[in-house]
Amino acid sequence: MKQLPTIDHIGIAVEDLDDAKYLYESLLGFQYIGTFTVPNQRVKVGILQAANIRIELLQAIDEDSVIHRFIQQKGPGIHHIALEVSDMQHTIKTLKEKNIELLEPVHAKGVNHSQIVFIHPKSMSGVLLELCQ
Amino acid sequence: MKQLPTIDHIGIAVEDLDDAKYLYESLLGFQYIGTFTVPNQRVKVGILQAANIRIELLQAIDEDSVIHRFIQQKGPGIHHIALEVSDMQHTIKTLKEKNIELLEPVHAKGVNHSQIVFIHPKSMSGVLLELCQ
Repeated sequence: MKQLPTIDHIGIAVEDLDDAKYLYESLLGFQYIGTFTVPNQRVKVGILQAANIRIELLQAIDEDSVIHRFIQQKGPGIHHIALEVSDMQHTIKTLKEKNIELLEPVHAKGVNHSQIVFIHPKSMSGVLLELCQ
Repeated sequence: MKQLPTIDHIGIAVEDLDDAKYLYESLLGFQYIGTFTVPNQRVKVGILQAANIRIELLQAIDEDSVIHRFIQQKGPGIHHIALEVSDMQHTIKTLKEKNIELLEPVHAKGVNHSQIVFIHPKSMSGVLLELCQ
């Protein structure tokens, strides 16, 4: 039987990490794992665990952050979903062959220094899809 | 040990269900379960299964659909996330006590005729959160 892909996490752009932490942890019962910083993306990340998936709350550190620009354009809300891939090089090659546009830089480092790459929303019917290994 | 909440599905607003089905099924390997219609919300829903979660692709049937209005305002993309609750009445009571605003109508019927209610994005740091039983 074919193995189905796993959604690793849902990324949510928030204006205030503490306010959002209260909603998801105290109100809805998610487990708060901890707060991490991803300097090259200028974001502070709050990790929450649900039974079947993680949620990443993303707060901009400064105005150079993509999260700052996202909130300015669209307001706070769901920013991306992330899909686990087992072989990043093979996946990237396959996507490029099918003319799927990737966002540079390929192979940025996310939380836990995993390899990540984003598919351009234009290629994914409006969804910013992160691939992570 | 406390039981963590389960994210039931991620709802994605799409302009064309067939185009989106190709991306998620053929390109990314999700299992396509089937297409359903939710007449009271004026949406056609394509259900996809991942290893740990479902994805619902939401296409407006006509211009009265909330999905039509969402796409007009924000473009296609991630529309909502849905959280399983075991006791809807208790959950609604708790949320109202904490001044969390719910969207009417409470207890609409979603796919599979489950009971659903939406938390207003203003109360959830910009996220449209569906609760489903």
